[in-house]
Formats: sequence, structure tokens, C-alpha cells
Amino acid sequence: MRIDQRESATMRVIAFETNVNKHAEGSILVSVGDTRVLCTATVEEKIPPFLRGKRQGWINAEYAMLPRATAQRTARESVRGKQTGRTMEIQRLISRALRAVVDLEKLGERTVWIDCDVIQADGGTRTAAITGGFLALVLAVDGLIQSGKLTDTPIKEGIAAVSIGKVGQELLLDLCYEEDAAADVDLNLVMTSSGKIVEMQATGEEATFSKREMLDMLELGEKGIEELLRAGQDALGASWWYVGEEVGEHR
Amino acid sequence: MRIDQRESATMRVIAFETNVNKHAEGSILVSVGDTRVLCTATVEEKIPPFLRGKRQGWINAEYAMLPRATAQRTARESVRGKQTGRTMEIQRLISRALRAVVDLEKLGERTVWIDCDVIQADGGTRTAAITGGFLALVLAVDGLIQSGKLTDTPIKEGIAAVSIGKVGQELLLDLCYEEDAAADVDLNLVMTSSGKIVEMQATGEEATFSKREMLDMLELGEKGIEELLRAGQDALGASWWYVGEEVGEHR
Amino acid sequence: MRIDQRESATMRVIAFETNVNKHAEGSILVSVGDTRVLCTATVEEKIPPFLRGKRQGWINAEYAMLPRATAQRTARESVRGKQTGRTMEIQRLISRALRAVVDLEKLGERTVWIDCDVIQADGGTRTAAITGGFLALVLAVDGLIQSGKLTDTPIKEGIAAVSIGKVGQELLLDLCYEEDAAADVDLNLVMTSSGKIVEMQATGEEATFSKREMLDMLELGEKGIEELLRAGQDALGASWWYVGEEVGEHR
Amino acid sequence: MRIDQRESATMRVIAFETNVNKHAEGSILVSVGDTRVLCTATVEEKIPPFLRGKRQGWINAEYAMLPRATAQRTARESVRGKQTGRTMEIQRLISRALRAVVDLEKLGERTVWIDCDVIQADGGTRTAAITGGFLALVLAVDGLIQSGKLTDTPIKEGIAAVSIGKVGQELLLDLCYEEDAAADVDLNLVMTSSGKIVEMQATGEEATFSKREMLDMLELGEKGIEELLRAGQDALGASWWYVGEEVGEHR
Amino acid sequence: MRIDQRESATMRVIAFETNVNKHAEGSILVSVGDTRVLCTATVEEKIPPFLRGKRQGWINAEYAMLPRATAQRTARESVRGKQTGRTMEIQRLISRALRAVVDLEKLGERTVWIDCDVIQADGGTRTAAITGGFLALVLAVDGLIQSGKLTDTPIKEGIAAVSIGKVGQELLLDLCYEEDAAADVDLNLVMTSSGKIVEMQATGEEATFSKREMLDMLELGEKGIEELLRAGQDALGASWWYVGEEVGEHR
Amino acid sequence: MRIDQRESATMRVIAFETNVNKHAEGSILVSVGDTRVLCTATVEEKIPPFLRGKRQGWINAEYAMLPRATAQRTARESVRGKQTGRTMEIQRLISRALRAVVDLEKLGERTVWIDCDVIQADGGTRTAAITGGFLALVLAVDGLIQSGKLTDTPIKEGIAAVSIGKVGQELLLDLCYEEDAAADVDLNLVMTSSGKIVEMQATGEEATFSKREMLDMLELGEKGIEELLRAGQDALGASWWYVGEEVGEHR
Repeated sequence: MRIDQRESATMRVIAFETNVNKHAEGSILVSVGDTRVLCTATVEEKIPPFLRGKRQGWINAEYAMLPRATAQRTARESVRGKQTGRTMEIQRLISRALRAVVDLEKLGERTVWIDCDVIQADGGTRTAAITGGFLALVLAVDGLIQSGKLTDTPIKEGIAAVSIGKVGQELLLDLCYEEDAAADVDLNLVMTSSGKIVEMQATGEEATFSKREMLDMLELGEKGIEELLRAGQDALGASWWYVGEEVGEHR
Repeated sequence: MRIDQRESATMRVIAFETNVNKHAEGSILVSVGDTRVLCTATVEEKIPPFLRGKRQGWINAEYAMLPRATAQRTARESVRGKQTGRTMEIQRLISRALRAVVDLEKLGERTVWIDCDVIQADGGTRTAAITGGFLALVLAVDGLIQSGKLTDTPIKEGIAAVSIGKVGQELLLDLCYEEDAAADVDLNLVMTSSGKIVEMQATGEEATFSKREMLDMLELGEKGIEELLRAGQDALGASWWYVGEEVGEHR
Repeated sequence: MRIDQRESATMRVIAFETNVNKHAEGSILVSVGDTRVLCTATVEEKIPPFLRGKRQGWINAEYAMLPRATAQRTARESVRGKQTGRTMEIQRLISRALRAVVDLEKLGERTVWIDCDVIQADGGTRTAAITGGFLALVLAVDGLIQSGKLTDTPIKEGIAAVSIGKVGQELLLDLCYEEDAAADVDLNLVMTSSGKIVEMQATGEEATFSKREMLDMLELGEKGIEELLRAGQDALGASWWYVGEEVGEHR
Repeated sequence: MRIDQRESATMRVIAFETNVNKHAEGSILVSVGDTRVLCTATVEEKIPPFLRGKRQGWINAEYAMLPRATAQRTARESVRGKQTGRTMEIQRLISRALRAVVDLEKLGERTVWIDCDVIQADGGTRTAAITGGFLALVLAVDGLIQSGKLTDTPIKEGIAAVSIGKVGQELLLDLCYEEDAAADVDLNLVMTSSGKIVEMQATGEEATFSKREMLDMLELGEKGIEELLRAGQDALGASWWYVGEEVGEHR
Repeated sequence: MRIDQRESATMRVIAFETNVNKHAEGSILVSVGDTRVLCTATVEEKIPPFLRGKRQGWINAEYAMLPRATAQRTARESVRGKQTGRTMEIQRLISRALRAVVDLEKLGERTVWIDCDVIQADGGTRTAAITGGFLALVLAVDGLIQSGKLTDTPIKEGIAAVSIGKVGQELLLDLCYEEDAAADVDLNLVMTSSGKIVEMQATGEEATFSKREMLDMLELGEKGIEELLRAGQDALGASWWYVGEEVGEHR
Repeated sequence: MRIDQRESATMRVIAFETNVNKHAEGSILVSVGDTRVLCTATVEEKIPPFLRGKRQGWINAEYAMLPRATAQRTARESVRGKQTGRTMEIQRLISRALRAVVDLEKLGERTVWIDCDVIQADGGTRTAAITGGFLALVLAVDGLIQSGKLTDTPIKEGIAAVSIGKVGQELLLDLCYEEDAAADVDLNLVMTSSGKIVEMQATGEEATFSKREMLDMLELGEKGIEELLRAGQDALGASWWYVGEEVGEHR
């Protein structure tokens, strides 16, 4: 039995609150257990300099934590004068993950900014940010289609992310903070609705692991991803686009 | 009639959601119209170096806006590498305001951090931050009393803040964003439950104003402050401490 | 009796030394008691990016203190790597104040930089900077008129600033450093030659104040402003432009 | 056939030049094809603040590229004023990897800094840095043993790293720059001499991959790791410590 | 004839105004022609960390220019977020120069900060800063002696600095800005009252020079140094300490 | 006898390894004793903004030390967030020196970046950087000529640099680290193949020196420069350009 009474292969409660911000082109408040991340999508009708003349768009994610998202207050990065390595690593991961399921040429010469701000942290903030960031992106793309700026969705399929860990001798799905802090091995999995892997980062924390353990963790992750994708589909309702491996219709 | 159908002396809808953060010693989500500020209070059992040996505590506020709190996305200060002058000015204001109603010696040698993060902005974010930050502080002090770290409240009286402006020839209470952007004169008022002024900043934006106009704006502000204090009292319920000009009981 | 033998409503000695810098388009060394601020005006024939296409000019002030302007040496902001919140707050105040008396369209598409460098500090440096910065601006505008770049002055009226404070139970005009450090309430007043308020910032330092006290402080301030404006007029002599509420002639 | 005539499962030429720096406690110039990374180990007889009282040591790696390590000159991070996200991500990876094979308590209260400076880049700089950084660490530990500061090696086993990629439909071991730039999927594998995984990062670059492909890449990687470990063993000669899965003798 | 009618070996007008700052332990406003540098000396009763336990003091100089010291306004280093290379180079030079004539052990465990702020620039600001900074230091040391903190002066001899240049085919003493901008070779000479060299920096600006020219410039410089030292001696009057090569009496 | 058995006028062993970097347009690994500096030249077909419209090119040098180039590990400037004053001073010196022997108009509208990275430091890194940076520049210019981008060399003559010092009562050529640390006077000499001085910086470290000593050090330096130029000529072989005082042929 886990600290919060879950089975090893059980996800925490997943919830998505849509359109929580009146300004953003898309917004989602994602909750996975006590982890809550506010994800907003901003459509900007320009592209970064390095894409000039390439006739494509871009997805750029930023990630941050409010100072008291954590049990101990964390100093603001704006006060420190720079982002930490952890923050940079996470926002690079989110950006890459989302770009993997978007046809950037179809998106057109525009940038979608995905801002993932952790309101409350309890483990798995980066994976929640990917899962929620994707839904905010879907809502923003819906808006582009409804306003006629896009005729067809550039989104190729659904995507979600989850963490799995080895705590003591147990392999556990969807780690909460206490489990994450105690884990010897940590695996972050980003996967699409067609079951393809986008990113898989398995890390020993002053520890190592076998190929067998890695495969078992992967299997746990696949189960979690499926639940997350299904919950996302439910949250977006009629606007959602995906059944099984096929990309569905926008409204 | 105002853009949102209010009378000139009518406040927007005020709402306080308490204990919205499981980690913080005190937390409030304050809404004034569409402006929403998440205020958390963190108790830290140490004091800044300049207070060493002075046998007193400290209150320190920080303020920030999420990138998409605004109609146009605002670049993160952590990415820019520093806080803007506006941010610094606002957090100095919040800090001073809250310290004015706290007996810092009674607080003891500890620091209370008040983090005010603007989730959604629609005018009056700095005044909402003061109003909500104070309630988060009350909750944190309640906790110190309940845990026996304090026997008596160091809070001397209630405090709240509101903006008033001159838009065209009209004097208006509690400006929303459109009004704020159009205002020639902007007055931010911070006042206590005993009707004393803590801070009053009246500013002409490429414009000037008469003493008469200043006094009329002040009067509008007094009305708004009273509503805000009453709403705050209701929100904190039995834990609240103040009736009329007297400081009441903690539970 | 005050620490320097003044009555409560008496200003310190005011002095303006004009054209103290051979490079600047306008320059003033303003002394108010032992506070000395070197103000230079620089005319730059371009405008900041956010004003492109708006057919108007801009006034931008910067403020700094030499390291040993103060009793204790203050570390250089260039060494710290950033300006303090106090500096940013002050230079935003100076900029706003000066823009309030300038017709920015009449100024044309140019920027006037007002640099206010505190050579020696003894209280009231921000108000001295506004008072002196305005005179440097007048001199720079004179130059634009004499060189034919402007035919008519864009300056709408005179402006000056002064501080007033509550020290113990006394309300005092034009605080020196010791008074400022001891004050419970501090009011900075920026006012025009026609008696209009541009900015009024009344601040309780861990203290509060009544509306009555605020009005009494305002009255003291009005007296000080009048003396400052008169002294400024004398300093600029024939080039000066103002009698009573009317804007006079440039040479 | 690959761009440099290799088979898909063939490593580039591996070379280690030992003791290339007269100051460092351990130093290695590692070459993998045209990628050359200078790795130095510095023993510092103190620990970072967060380890106070924990009776253990620490390994901290830093990574950088010389400006002209790359085909196009890269601006110095010291001139930009900060490290890039890529740099931070890489040095966090190297640090974690090396800590996984060191018994930090046995190391004692000291820090070993591993500096990995890329002299010339041609793909796989982060994996070369891990492979070489480990050998520099071994040399530094040898020194600690020889000088009597340590009696027993804190190194638990050997470690090396390699990249594998999917380029078009091919899975390729040890990517050179051109292959890396063209790869749809990139897998960085860090593995120990006992065949355990320390870190495995598989990333789709605007692409996805199947579990099957991941496993095939892993298998290629295992082959490369073995060659790297063997070459490292040869380079350190008599001082080396490892045969098969067992940890051998220090001289 | 030079642009300002001087002979090639003639210094500009030298003036020292003493005790221009009421807070500093020593202060001098030095003028050399139109170059004016405000030099203050601050005595701090502590030493930098690297001198702990060495039983000696330290001299540390900082240099800056006011934004409008120059013909074109120069952006503030505090706004840029860092000091320029030129500033750093100059303040390192001033620091070294002053330390060369002070017995740091005799100074005791204290730091003297020399702040050199250029009020107006017209060539030779770094040399004027050395010349004036030294006099500010003398005044601060005088204060230490008068207050009984020192019994004997740690100043070994006088010091001053001057620039010499090659403009066209002419060798000129004490360059003004126009000459400095046109010079092919620039020599900054720092020399003591006993005729010893402390620092000599001769620099070709996209040009070279012969040993003969260097020696001729040096000779011009010696003449200038002597005038500067004499003028400094006159300015400090009875407090001054030096005749010929001997160190004189403090008052 | 010196610490490394040299006579006072004897240079350390000089070695140049050419074309050590496959990406750079020119590259040299220069060794002077145990000091090793990697110099690369990068040709960039654009010019800095301040040269727009001046029909000339530019030479810009950057200098840095690897963390463990030194006996004690030096913190990275990228981690500190800025370059030190020492670094800035040195790279300004290298840049000026190289520009002195290049006809910038003949170079055409392009920039040559000279990166000097100290791999191992043992005194004289800045002078080795000039000596080696020049050879890297020659190789890059050779490339421009061979590719037809230049028809004629813009290099006017050869250049090299050396340090001389006064250690105790001895004047010594080409100081190693121990000598440098013990030196009272330090002279860095930059000279051309025609015997002209480009830069001469003689500095007393809390010490002074006579004109006689300066001239004797200069003479030692001339000897060292000649050896360095000759060694450079040998290293570049047929591509070299200089015999005696005449500029020779490029291949």
C-alpha cells in the first residue's frame, strides 16, 4: 500500500478545468492529485528569427513554480536574476514534446507559447505540464480554426506524460512528492495517443537499474498515459478529436 | 454608466477563497471583478540581517504577474533576468502597507513572506494584492497562535486598498483595466479599519488635478475600503478579529 | 525648534547653479540645504520604439546617487549589476512628473533625457531632482527654440516638488536626513505653478495618519512649492517664462 | 554505408590521452572521432552547504564548449552573461551519471569537480564528457589513495556513455554531427561496467518512436558502451580496477 | 599651436577643491582643463576576505562617468547591468597606483575606498582620477591620524598621473579630448614624488612607435607630473607632507 | 639561476602546433614553457554596427581560461555571470595589438574573431595569446587569399609579445608563474617584426621602478620578441611573410 493508499499501478485523481483565463487563447488548470498546473496557450502571429523563410510555425513552452507551490518557499527566479537549470531542462522538454505532435508547417508562420505555472506541487509537475499544456494548445488551435485562420488542425495526435519510479523494490506509477523524493529510479514518459514514445527519460539517482526494470516501468507508464488521454478527451468534450489511434474531427 | 454597467461609486464583485494552497501557512485567492490574485503567507523563523539584535519581526511582500495574466502576453521577469521597476515599486508598497498594521516586536523574530501572484489582471492588481495579502497574513498569524508560537495577535487592525480614478470628467471607484488605461488621474488608497490612511498615492498621467478632486476621490475610496474590509471579515468568519474600530478576538 | 534651527514651515536654503556642464543641452546644480543634485538634460533626436508613429516626443529621467553621497558609502548599482527598487521608483516618479507639464506633441519626435545624479544627500533628493530636473529641461528647450528646432515652448507650466513629514507630533516642511529618518509619515508633493497637483504620495512608515494631517501637510507643501518655483524663476532670469498662473515668454 | 564509411553498429575511433594537465588532480583528453573533450578532475577539500553534517562527499560536473569547437562560432556564455539551458542540462546529466557509480560516503567530505571542456565538437560531446570525466575521476581518486587520504576506492564500478540515433529508417551507433543533425530520434545511454543503466534519454525530435525501436537502439548502445569501457581500461593501464563485473585493485 | 593654444609641453589649468563632500573622510574635486573628477575617500574598518590574517590594509578604487560627462550621453552601467571593460581597466589601474605609495601594513586592517566619479570629461580622466584620488586619500589618512587611529602616516610618497600622446608627428603633454581622439599613440604615466615610475602604459592605436618616441613622451610626462604634484601640495597646504624626495610632516 | 634553471635572458621553450582545429579558419596551439593557449581565428563576413559605412574590417579578440588551467581551480565566468576585469583588460589588449599590424581597409568589410583559450597557465598567458593569436590570424588571412576573397595580404608586419619582470633585484625575461607572483615590476611588451613598439605596459605591484630599469627590461624584451617571431616564422613555413623588416610573400 502506498502513502496515499493507492495500488502501485493506480493514477492519482486527474481533473482538468478548461478556459480558466479570460485573456488566453487556450487555458487549462490541470490537477493530478495535489499537483496543480495552470497552462495557458498564447498565439502570437510571428515566428522566432531562426525560422525566417522556413514557412513553418513554432511551439515554445515556459515553466515556472510559484514561490509557495512547494512545502518550503522557493525563491523567485526573477529575484535570483536567472532561471535554474532544472527550470530550463523542464521547459525544453515540454517544448520538444508538444512539437512532436504538431505539423509545424500546417500551423503556419505563428508561435504558440505554452505557459505552465505550477500553482501547487506534489510530484510530477513536468508531466502534468505536458499533459495540460497539450490541452491548452488544442483549445488555442480550436480558436484558430473557428476564426478561420486555420482550415485544418495541425495537431497530429494526442499526447500526455506521466512519471514512474522505483521506490525501494517497488515500481510505482505516478509518484507523489514523498515517493519521488524516496525514489532510486525515476522515469518520465511522454507518449502519444497512437502509443508511440516521444520522450523517455529514465534516471538513476545515485543508483542504477536493469533493462527489465526499465521495461516494467514503461508498461506502468503506458497504462497511466491512456488514463490521462481519456480524461483529457472527456474534458474537452465535443471539441476533441481522437478515438483510438485515429485523429478525429474538430467540432 | 460605466463600461461594465456600474455606478461611479460601485465596487466590482469581491470574493475571497481561503486556504487554497496546502503548503502555505496562510492563503487566499482574492477576486475583485476579473482581477484575481493568489496570496500566500509563509512564516520563516528567521529575520533579515539588518534586523539582527533588534528583537522584532519583519513582513516582506513579493508581487508578480503570470505571463498571460494580461491581454497581451508579458515576458517573464526570470527570462528578462530582472524585475521591472513597476514590480519593485508595487512590492515595496505592499510590504510597507502590511507592516503599518503589525506590531513587529509582538510578531517576534520571524519573517512573514507575502507572495502575491496575479493569475488574471483586470485593473487594481496592486490594491487587490494588499487586500488579499492582509487576509493571508491573518491566517498565518492565526496558525502561529493556534500552535502556541504566539499568545497574542500582533495585528493592530484591518487593512485594505482600492483604486480611484478620474476618467474624462468622472471620478470612478475601483477601476477596471479599460478605465485605468483611460484615466488621467489615478489614486491608490490604503486604509485601516479605524479609518486611518496608510498610503495614498495620487498620480497625474500627463495630467494634473486639484485638491478638491483629490478629496472627492479620497471619499470614494473610503466607501470602497469599507466594503472590502467587511467582505474580508465575512470570508475569515469566526477567526476574524475586528468590529468597528476595535480589534476583536482570535477564536 | 528643528535640528537645524528652522521653524516647522521653513524651507532650507535653496540654490540653483545653471550651466554647470559644458556638454549638456541644459544643466543645473540644485542645492536644498546640504542636498545637492546635478541635473543634466540631453536632447536626443529620436524616440523610444513604443512611440513610433505617434508623432510625439518623450521625457525620460534617470536617478542615481554617487557612492559617497550618503553618510555610509553605498555600493554602486553598476557593481551590484542592477538598479535598486528605490532607484527605479524614484526615476519613474521624476519622469511622470516632468511629462505632466510638457505638451509631448509640441515637443516633436525627440527624447529629452533628464539625468539626476545626487552628489550629496541630506534628505529630499527625489524632490530636489524633480525641481532641478525641470529647470534643466527648461534650459534644453530654450536651446531648441534658439536653434530654431522649436518655434514655441512645449512646456505648459512650472513644476517643483517638496517633502513634508510628521515627526513625533510635529508636521514639518522640507525634511533633512535626520528628520526623514525619524518621520512616521512622509509626504512627497509635486505641484505646478498654477497650483495643480501632479503627484502626491503620502506614506506611513509602520504608522498611519488621518485625513486632517494629510491636509495640513499638503498646505505646508504648497508653501514650499511656491518658494521653490520663485527661486527657480530667479535662477533662470530673463529666459524664464512664468508669472502667477500664466506661461510667459521665452526670451 | 554511413557518411564516414562506418557500419551502423561501428563506433568511431576512441582515444584517451591521460595526464594532459599539470595542475589537475586527474586529466584526460578524450577523442571519439573528431569530438575532443578535455576533462579535468579537481579535488576540493570541502563540501557544498546542503551537505553539511551528512558525512559524505559530492561530485559536481561543469560543461562548456570553446567558441570555435563548432562549425559556426558560438558566442561565449561568459559574454552572454549566463549559461544556456542546453549547457545546464548537460552538466546536470554528467554530475548525476558520475555520482551513480561513486560511494559518496566513502569519498569523504570532499568535492570532486569534473570540468568537461569541448575543444572540438563533432556529435556526442555530452556522452564523451561522461566517458572521459569518469576516467579523470578515477585518476583523481588514485591520487587520493596514493597520498593516503583514502584507503579504499569509493568507485563502485566503471561507467561510460554513448549516443544512438534513428536517421531515416536506420538505427545508428555513435552519431557524428551530420547524423545527429539529421536524426529523428536520439538516445543517450549511460551504462555501468556491470551492464546496469544509469540514465537513458530517448528523445523524438518532432518525431516519435516505437518501443521496438527503443530496444534496438538500446542494444546498439550496449555494444558501444562495452568498447568504450574496454578502451578506458586500456588507457589507464595498471591503475585500472575492473574485470568483467568485478571491481579490481588499485595498483 | 594646439587646439587650445597650448605649447606641446604645457599642462592645462590644474585646480583642486578640497573637502567638497560633507560625508566623506576625504574629498577633492580635481580639474585639469575641462576634465573634472570628484574623488572621495571612505575609510572602512574592515578588510576584504582574501586579506584575512595578513595584518594589512587595502586600497580599492572605483571609477565611473556620469551619463552626460561626455559630449554624447553615455548609458549608465547600472542600466546596462554591468561595468564596461574600460571602466574595469581604469579602476584596476587607479587601485594599483595608489597601493604603490602606501605601506599597507602601516595602514592597519582597514580598507580605504577611493571613488572617482567623472563629472565632466575632456580627456585624461583616468590620470586626473589618480592625481585627485591620491589627495583624497591623504585627507582621509590625515583624519585617521588626527583621530588617533594612526600615529604615523602609511603614505610613502606623493603620486600623480598624466597622459602624453603622439598626434600627427607631434608629441603633446596632457591631451584634451580632441587630441586624444586623434592620437596615434597614447602614453599614461603614473609617477611618484621621488621620480620613480609606478605605471607606464604606452599604446599604439592601430599604430606603432619607436623607443625614441617613447622616451621623449616619458620626458614630457615627467614635467607634467612635477606640476601636478606641486599643485597638489599647494592645495593641501599645511597638511601636506612632502618636499623634494622626502616625506614631510603631517600638521 | 632561475627556478627552472634558465639564465635571466633566456626564453622558455617555444612551440607552435598549427591547424589544431578542423572548424576554424586558422588555429594554433601555442606553448611557451608550460603555458598553453589555443588560438582560433574565425572569419565572419560582417562588421560591428559602429563600422557601418566605413569600408573597413575589424579584429576582435576574446580571452578566457579553462577552470583548471590554474593551480587552483578558477570558477567559470559563465557561472559567475560576467567576465572579470582582468579578462576584459586582456582581451582589449590582444585586440588592439593585432589591429596595429593589420590594414583594416585592405581586410575588407569582415571581422576576424581571435579566440584565445588558455588550456594550461604558467605565466605569460596574455603575451602567448598575442603571439599565437597573430599566427592564427595569418592562417585565416592565407585562407582568404587562397579562396580569392582577398588578393593581397592586409597584414603589415609580424607581431609578438613577451613579459619581463623585476624579481628581487634581478631583471628576468619571460616569467613563469612563480616568478610572476614574486615580481615587484611586470612589463608586457608587444612589438613588431620591424622593431616598433605596439604596446608597453610596465606596472609596479605595490612597488616602483626607475627609468633605467624600464629600459633594461625593454632590452630583454626585444630579445624575446625576436625569438618568438623567428619561431612563428618557422612554424608557418612557406606561408610565412616576413624577412628582416620586409613583409614577404604569401605562397
